[in-house]
Amino acid sequence: MNYLKKVVIVSLCLYFPDLLHAQKHPNIMLSKENVASVREGLQKYPLLKDSYSEVLKEADLAVNAAIQVPVPRDGGGGITHEQHKKNYQRILACGVAYQLSQDLKYADYVRDILLIYAKQYKKWPFHPKSNPSNPPGRIFWQNLNDCVWQVHVIQGYDLVYDALSARDRKTIENDLFLPVLKYITADSYETFNRIHNHGTWAVAAVGLTGYVMGRQEYVDMALKGSDKQGKSGFFAQIDQLFSPDGYYTEGFYYQRYAIMPFIVFAKAIQQYQPELNIYNYRNGLLKKAVNTALQGTYTNGVFFPINDAIKEKTFESEELVYGVDIAYADMGGDPGLLSIARRQKKVVVSDAGLQVARDIYVGKVKDFSYRSQWIGDGKSGKEGGLGILRGRESKSQQCLVFKAASQGLGHGHFDRLNILYYDNGGEVFPDYGAARFINIETKGGGGYLKENTTWAKQTVAHNTLVVDQTSAFKANLKEAEKHYPRLIHFDVKDEIQVVSAEENNAYPGVAMRRTTALIRLDGLNKPLLVDIVQARSETAHQYDLPFWYKGHVVDASFKIHAKTNNLQALGERFGYQHIWLNSQSNIDRGNGYVTVLNANQFYTTTFATGTPLQIKLVSLGANDPELNLVESKAFILSQPQSTNQTFVSLTENHGGTDPRAEVTTGAKSSVAAVSIIKSDSMQTSFSFKLNDRLYTIKVNYQDKNNFIQINQ
Amino acid sequence: MNYLKKVVIVSLCLYFPDLLHAQKHPNIMLSKENVASVREGLQKYPLLKDSYSEVLKEADLAVNAAIQVPVPRDGGGGITHEQHKKNYQRILACGVAYQLSQDLKYADYVRDILLIYAKQYKKWPFHPKSNPSNPPGRIFWQNLNDCVWQVHVIQGYDLVYDALSARDRKTIENDLFLPVLKYITADSYETFNRIHNHGTWAVAAVGLTGYVMGRQEYVDMALKGSDKQGKSGFFAQIDQLFSPDGYYTEGFYYQRYAIMPFIVFAKAIQQYQPELNIYNYRNGLLKKAVNTALQGTYTNGVFFPINDAIKEKTFESEELVYGVDIAYADMGGDPGLLSIARRQKKVVVSDAGLQVARDIYVGKVKDFSYRSQWIGDGKSGKEGGLGILRGRESKSQQCLVFKAASQGLGHGHFDRLNILYYDNGGEVFPDYGAARFINIETKGGGGYLKENTTWAKQTVAHNTLVVDQTSAFKANLKEAEKHYPRLIHFDVKDEIQVVSAEENNAYPGVAMRRTTALIRLDGLNKPLLVDIVQARSETAHQYDLPFWYKGHVVDASFKIHAKTNNLQALGERFGYQHIWLNSQSNIDRGNGYVTVLNANQFYTTTFATGTPLQIKLVSLGANDPELNLVESKAFILSQPQSTNQTFVSLTENHGGTDPRAEVTTGAKSSVAAVSIIKSDSMQTSFSFKLNDRLYTIKVNYQDKNNFIQINQ
Repeated sequence: MNYLKKVVIVSLCLYFPDLLHAQKHPNIMLSKENVASVREGLQKYPLLKDSYSEVLKEADLAVNAAIQVPVPRDGGGGITHEQHKKNYQRILACGVAYQLSQDLKYADYVRDILLIYAKQYKKWPFHPKSNPSNPPGRIFWQNLNDCVWQVHVIQGYDLVYDALSARDRKTIENDLFLPVLKYITADSYETFNRIHNHGTWAVAAVGLTGYVMGRQEYVDMALKGSDKQGKSGFFAQIDQLFSPDGYYTEGFYYQRYAIMPFIVFAKAIQQYQPELNIYNYRNGLLKKAVNTALQGTYTNGVFFPINDAIKEKTFESEELVYGVDIAYADMGGDPGLLSIARRQKKVVVSDAGLQVARDIYVGKVKDFSYRSQWIGDGKSGKEGGLGILRGRESKSQQCLVFKAASQGLGHGHFDRLNILYYDNGGEVFPDYGAARFINIETKGGGGYLKENTTWAKQTVAHNTLVVDQTSAFKANLKEAEKHYPRLIHFDVKDEIQVVSAEENNAYPGVAMRRTTALIRLDGLNKPLLVDIVQARSETAHQYDLPFWYKGHVVDASFKIHAKTNNLQALGERFGYQHIWLNSQSNIDRGNGYVTVLNANQFYTTTFATGTPLQIKLVSLGANDPELNLVESKAFILSQPQSTNQTFVSLTENHGGTDPRAEVTTGAKSSVAAVSIIKSDSMQTSFSFKLNDRLYTIKVNYQDKNNFIQINQ
Repeated sequence: MNYLKKVVIVSLCLYFPDLLHAQKHPNIMLSKENVASVREGLQKYPLLKDSYSEVLKEADLAVNAAIQVPVPRDGGGGITHEQHKKNYQRILACGVAYQLSQDLKYADYVRDILLIYAKQYKKWPFHPKSNPSNPPGRIFWQNLNDCVWQVHVIQGYDLVYDALSARDRKTIENDLFLPVLKYITADSYETFNRIHNHGTWAVAAVGLTGYVMGRQEYVDMALKGSDKQGKSGFFAQIDQLFSPDGYYTEGFYYQRYAIMPFIVFAKAIQQYQPELNIYNYRNGLLKKAVNTALQGTYTNGVFFPINDAIKEKTFESEELVYGVDIAYADMGGDPGLLSIARRQKKVVVSDAGLQVARDIYVGKVKDFSYRSQWIGDGKSGKEGGLGILRGRESKSQQCLVFKAASQGLGHGHFDRLNILYYDNGGEVFPDYGAARFINIETKGGGGYLKENTTWAKQTVAHNTLVVDQTSAFKANLKEAEKHYPRLIHFDVKDEIQVVSAEENNAYPGVAMRRTTALIRLDGLNKPLLVDIVQARSETAHQYDLPFWYKGHVVDASFKIHAKTNNLQALGERFGYQHIWLNSQSNIDRGNGYVTVLNANQFYTTTFATGTPLQIKLVSLGANDPELNLVESKAFILSQPQSTNQTFVSLTENHGGTDPRAEVTTGAKSSVAAVSIIKSDSMQTSFSFKLNDRLYTIKVNYQDKNNFIQINQ
């Protein structure tokens, strides 16, 4: 480069600092300097090759079909919704295909479809299927999906940028992307400046578009909010939406969802403004976020469905493919991530995907290490959190999730001190997740159903204490957001794993504590799940402790007399109106057991309350006129009138049945005679027999050094 | 051998013909002359090696544990039940282990435990948990299990025979086996002479014992009944329990169960009396029986659960391992059987197992070929039967089972013209199977529950027409056994597979016909399931046609107003008392659709009746005080008052949802506007639209050459 040129460029850059960024395309997931290596890698690394085959298949479908850009009309899952979704996926696929094949037909597709969008976009009003619960989109029923659209489309555009004429670029940028930017930043000003996953998609869409179009002012708004003061925007979101442990306050379902814009935008920032050192921001928070998302899954890959969550979601979802690839390749992640990538069976066809596929190929894979851990919630990590206790097994792992997190914004459920229990590859005490048939348009437009509010969010839909047949905080979000549970103790040793927390605000005047432990004892296959729920109050209340279970009740210590006709709802509000009361038994001495056969294994929950108790067997479905609710069953330990009340339960996995071989083993639990000795603000102690040996367990709430004691 | 010896032996044989048989041990599944080859094969053929490892593991457990022979006490699944079951399995395992390892410790175990049984057996009275539904055993709660015990034990004895002292043999034979023989042939005379699977186990136990002990008189009784006249016994069972197509009249669950004694006893007959040519008896019936059992499974290996059946049973069950090995090795079976053996992941460690494992090893495996076929029922093959229509796919196979069989003895269900429908690897319209938690002692002793009679056997528990809210034959077994449906037509072509049958006796005065077809049409992924149910009567009746479905109703042509409280049973008798009526809608013109989301795929059933119709959405569980019933749901097409009535329905598999990727495709059925043109004794014709093209289908009941016509 001669001197004059240099001067000109430097001068231009001083006047138009954006130009430096705008010069190189592509420059996000797949960058110009790596295209050749990725192309070579396709020949060598099976995972990259397979992933590219999928991309190419999609791209070929695109170029061989007539372009369809329908006027937006349908809700989630409907025809126009799915078409616009398909379009953004194909625009991205064609972008990648163009770069790697250099076949212009793929670039032409992107050009043609974007020109059609450019012609129409400004004519589209707010979407006709929008509803008050979410700001409207133009292309989709909600703003969110429009932002997701743009995150994909701008990447596709970046990938074919060099193949487009200056005139077409101008048309697309002026008639489509600038209006989209205006729509997101101005029309949807509030969402854009909101600290929320919708906000993250919005800033990622705007920031990526700003980089690709060389419009740094949009990048700056994306990073620091509309007023560029940093109270909103990407940095503020990283600061506020995650805890120091990398937990995203809405829960794992949305953590997974948010990961994608966080990761893709971070990658773009790293490419365009490496001086921002985004990967190290807040002590490498984004890397932790990916790792914590993975720790938020059971061994079958399914995310723990706390708060609003679609239960089928696994770490195989696209967002985590991005997360794992970038965390491994760009953030110096652990080789355990490679085993996840292998189970994902794909990589992003990109700089990072190349490295992941290569390292798997050369044998660097290690098993991902699931850990028992406390994950703090809130910006400071002190607003409650989640305790995860895991057994040693890989496939048949025992896993207890203890939810003592903060409310988790509008998608949060009113389930303080809730537990979810997994074993042997599946659910034992499940969480309902969200009441939603995602993208099934005939079911509430594919969105959250009204039963998500009337049922799924209510306390009784969860495995936690319900006071006076109401929900925690009377299901008032504002009130719930003011308070969070307090961790009392978390400790993991080989023989005892324990987590204990308290919540004193969910029900005024009632102090609630729960202590849950996995305890390894002689003579048991697997550790015993010990659960102590304590409520203390000066006035009398009804205390209900539901255990929603999977499987079929095959034995109980009490006689079951199920209602034979005229089935009645258990209550009228707070979710109780959705529960059918199948049977009710009075247990005078407050102890007994229920045995459930679940996936051919027995689980017996032996309980004691020390007070006369009712046990209710219930199922879901009352007051459900459109049959929106999914089959669910529970046994509820119910104490109709009590001031202080403790529920102790021991759940044992024992024996099983092999219906193919017609063999049953260990059908009886080894646990018996659970008896509460004492329970007050200082301690709870109880005894039980295991194979006729007497054990005493004492929990010392105030003594961290000696929190739980077991005597035989 | 010198001349004198020969003369002596021949003379002895003339006087004591049994001696010839008695001389060689072992001589059933594993024969003396093949022991060396099997031992060699263990080194070479992985499947044989793995199978032997399993046997050895069991044998080692046996020799390393204290022997337990408890006084019989518990019902199915209880402790003494499972112990005696374990004992017979281990006796057989140790027998095999002794032969192949020549380690005497295994033979010693068999000797020791049999001497203990010999000491006690005669003291045991009839089992205390016996009940009137089945003849009592001595070791188990029913005679059947005692016979199963003996079938295993006598094989174990045969395998260690040579290692025992003459004195021990005498003790075991005199104090155990002869009393067992007396118990089976005399105390249980009726079962022994019954044409029934219990009878088969009984004769196999007696026949095998007769051969091994050299007591031909018992063999003869086993073969031809107590009076040796041939009206009962093994030959009569082969004659009468199977159809010429190899279908066992009780259904596939019991066919599977019966296969084991049929096969093992046949193998012994072949070893001891080859002149009986048992494998060729009745045109090679036993080989057909094995093949038909396999054809009685879906592609996931699960047996079609018609009549009383445990739904988890697959062709991986032990009995079919015996069946497949012997059918392949001894009966000249098809190499397709090897693919089944490979999915069974085991062989019987035996002469036959050696051959199967070797042939798999050398690459002779072919895919098992599932066929569409009509399987005749009854001795003549003319007492109704089963129509099985299958798609071309291997894993996602579409499969329709049409049950027009005879009653199937006491385990038969009252479900004439019932259909079961499978697709995409699972159930779409399932059959309930039996109401039983097998071997779960706390659930009715592990046996059939009372709901098996009040629910599972009743007509409404099935996908077939119910007249006047009663069951076929008013659920009277004797009456039902007098009649069977008549096949009208069965034909399989590439584009159309059809089966049609009629039943005119199930409901007096009502002629019932059903015609079911899989029809391949342009624009559909998979063939359309077309179902035409016709009832003709001179008097008015209520006609209910239930479709029990798996999955969740996500769309319907009518508004669903489910009962919100005070859920009521649908009726009082014939199974209706167990059904909750969730919603009822009136459909004036008698047509509409229901869409079910099942395993992420959509299935829409579009129906027409030509008359005003009620559609009832129901679930199972009323009048079930012990919560014995398993979750089930149906939509019922109900015509309250009609003389002649036709129900036409078209079930389309379309589109699906991927909740991981949050993509939904093809949520709307392509079928619309179904309309009945005509339906009488000669024909049914109707029209419908598929993607806006009009089709007419005409069924000509009397015209075999032109049975079904499709016009576009």
